[in-house]
Amino acid sequence: MSSLSLEVDNRVRDSTHDPTLRSWIESANSSTDFPVQNLPLGVFRVAEEAGRVGVAIGDSILDLSAAIARGLWASAGGDIAHAVRQPSLNALMTLGGDARRAIRHAASDLLRHDTETGRRARAQSAGLVYAAGEVTMLRPVAVGDYTDFYASVHHATNVGRMMRPDNPLLPNYKWIPIGYHGRASSIVVSGTPVRRPRGQTKDEGAAAPTVRPSRRLDYEAEVGFYVGKANVLGEPVGIADAPAHIFGICLLNDWSARDIQAWEYQPLGPFLAKSFATTVSPWVVTMEALEPFRTSVSPRPAGDPEPLPYLADAGDQRTGAVDLTIEVLLQSAKMREVGIAPVRLSCGNARDLYWTPAQLLAHHTSAGCNLGPGDLLGSGTVSGPERESRGCLLELTWRGTEPVELPTGETRRFLEDGDEVIMRGQCAADGAVAIGCGECRGVILPAIRGAC
Amino acid sequence: MSSLSLEVDNRVRDSTHDPTLRSWIESANSSTDFPVQNLPLGVFRVAEEAGRVGVAIGDSILDLSAAIARGLWASAGGDIAHAVRQPSLNALMTLGGDARRAIRHAASDLLRHDTETGRRARAQSAGLVYAAGEVTMLRPVAVGDYTDFYASVHHATNVGRMMRPDNPLLPNYKWIPIGYHGRASSIVVSGTPVRRPRGQTKDEGAAAPTVRPSRRLDYEAEVGFYVGKANVLGEPVGIADAPAHIFGICLLNDWSARDIQAWEYQPLGPFLAKSFATTVSPWVVTMEALEPFRTSVSPRPAGDPEPLPYLADAGDQRTGAVDLTIEVLLQSAKMREVGIAPVRLSCGNARDLYWTPAQLLAHHTSAGCNLGPGDLLGSGTVSGPERESRGCLLELTWRGTEPVELPTGETRRFLEDGDEVIMRGQCAADGAVAIGCGECRGVILPAIRGAC
Repeated sequence: MSSLSLEVDNRVRDSTHDPTLRSWIESANSSTDFPVQNLPLGVFRVAEEAGRVGVAIGDSILDLSAAIARGLWASAGGDIAHAVRQPSLNALMTLGGDARRAIRHAASDLLRHDTETGRRARAQSAGLVYAAGEVTMLRPVAVGDYTDFYASVHHATNVGRMMRPDNPLLPNYKWIPIGYHGRASSIVVSGTPVRRPRGQTKDEGAAAPTVRPSRRLDYEAEVGFYVGKANVLGEPVGIADAPAHIFGICLLNDWSARDIQAWEYQPLGPFLAKSFATTVSPWVVTMEALEPFRTSVSPRPAGDPEPLPYLADAGDQRTGAVDLTIEVLLQSAKMREVGIAPVRLSCGNARDLYWTPAQLLAHHTSAGCNLGPGDLLGSGTVSGPERESRGCLLELTWRGTEPVELPTGETRRFLEDGDEVIMRGQCAADGAVAIGCGECRGVILPAIRGAC
Repeated sequence: MSSLSLEVDNRVRDSTHDPTLRSWIESANSSTDFPVQNLPLGVFRVAEEAGRVGVAIGDSILDLSAAIARGLWASAGGDIAHAVRQPSLNALMTLGGDARRAIRHAASDLLRHDTETGRRARAQSAGLVYAAGEVTMLRPVAVGDYTDFYASVHHATNVGRMMRPDNPLLPNYKWIPIGYHGRASSIVVSGTPVRRPRGQTKDEGAAAPTVRPSRRLDYEAEVGFYVGKANVLGEPVGIADAPAHIFGICLLNDWSARDIQAWEYQPLGPFLAKSFATTVSPWVVTMEALEPFRTSVSPRPAGDPEPLPYLADAGDQRTGAVDLTIEVLLQSAKMREVGIAPVRLSCGNARDLYWTPAQLLAHHTSAGCNLGPGDLLGSGTVSGPERESRGCLLELTWRGTEPVELPTGETRRFLEDGDEVIMRGQCAADGAVAIGCGECRGVILPAIRGAC
């Protein structure tokens, strides 16, 4: 290993990543998304109490406001003490990266089995640590503006091929991180049921559109990047500064009604086909937790253009891709009834995206658009080169022409009422303890009846 | 006049619209956007004090919190007293239509020359009424989600004709109110300078895009509709209920970089070309003030489809179009220098939109999307059938091929640095005192220098 690589390693990792660390919460020490090396942030509620900020640890949740109140984090500033009592992470996001890192270090200290703080915490865990089953997870962030990108070249190529077999990728794709504004108000937390939308669709050859419940309801498996640090309107963020603006990641399901989308999207893009619901996972995995899982950007395929200077990502372990597998599972109502576990439909990796998080953020601000704490950037469907890595049914069933079979013998071209879609995300790397994002789930409710 | 029309007239107008009403503030009694029949709401700041809610009256502003504090609106509830002390109209919007109407009636009572309250207010006008020049107008609403429609068939046809001469309108246009999600964070109040964006554009025939300041910077004259009443996620608003969800209107300039837009917009719609700034007028003209200016929807041209049932607007004076002229003026830096007043570029009318506000709102919620207090719906460029009613330079100069000449001899295909764009909106009707929206202004600053 060259001295340069050693330097990089030292810069990006600190003691909180040490793979030998264990927690006094036993469930954190094996087979969990939330070992003591992860420490993601979320907002939880106990019974009818107000929402507040917690840290996931094994099958439990650490109450940060209780930790501060009990003197288990003596150095916490008043601004942090205030921020962790809020029903969203926004106040914390506004405090900046140093506050986020301070929480990471305090939580690590408090949850390790071998520290003095850990011993004190263990002795008074009632009211400090809750079992996941005792609490309700809330939407972690009040999203200001939500942007959805289209960063998987495999997804864009597949979708393009269905429409334009000879020329699947549009000429701008390899130059511009294509994105569009999404709907922030309909972002819901994992576990919220999703009602099948009704809308205008036009059958092939029909003279007029009809209004009916969507028959081509789909999911899209994405990774979401929350913005932490703001930029001023009119002042772009350079690519080198972009990583410092990202707070953390979540899993994101960009529910899509393909039949509504096909009829409405020209010329201004998707609108009602995607604004009826977007599901996010309750836990936000911070960029610090992801450090061992950042990966250099692969050289682009021969013939692809080099990124323009404002997108020229050094592509190192700080600014590069995230090595995150995203698995999609489905459980139909019938499977639930007869006790069959959810079945895996696909597994992609965010490493395969054509653009890095830093490139997405730098591009977004390049014409002057201001991003702020709590804004959310979706990656777009994370699909890889293989069939089993296609992150939505549109691709997986090739527009419904190749249905998938479920263990009950049922088949799926698109989602049926009662289907539950479950996404899971995991990061693994040599020399690091694997971490995960928790689940992003949603079950489809029937469309409401209506004259419309 | 039939008894039915009389009934309609009685339903929609009340004493606050009486054309004989005069205010003790003399400037409100002639040649003003803000006679005592208008009473629009905005947020102002005096020196470094906190922003609070005011009502425009002639060349002055009524401080609602001062009015309540002085007992000039004795019946105001505590919730209204709280809402008018906020630095945005959002709290007031959340209180519902009754609160908005209560403010209208209280302000009318207080500002009329012939009421007891009016006489008391006049005797203590210092600290109650401010000259417009003494205050700073703030962005009136913290916009949650911003949606931009494309509701002018004339605009859509003109833009379509430039790209597809034989088939200008896409097949969905006359069935669906086409819209897309816009960027809320970059909405600024009138008077805020707008920096020319830089971005990727691709010259015709070029092998690769270049990054440079936009050379085709444009405005779009729109009317904006603020949402007041929320709907629940998953529960569409029927067309008959839609009007009750709209709080009021503003003028809106959807600044657009045509060269950036042309290269980026396929397949997901406009993104950075429109997210660098959107300017709104500081005053929100309430739906109550607009009642005398609502107009029945004209029959659609022969051959056009009837609206689908969920969009079947009764089209009466409550749910119909708004008869609002929108004038666009421009003053170049040179014109300012030599003292030439802004010159009129165009004048359109929101009455010519293909869809009514109720249709836009009902459509937006039809697949379940939730709208809330403070959301903003832009109409899209308001263009009419004539050349002089084209609401953006793209149309007016026909993509730059027919430049407009300014009084200085300068010509414009698109906007130059130092150009100020000024929009004005006016409503007039027989038997009613004309009202206006105030101005929506913005001056173009040069692009920032940058390596990108």
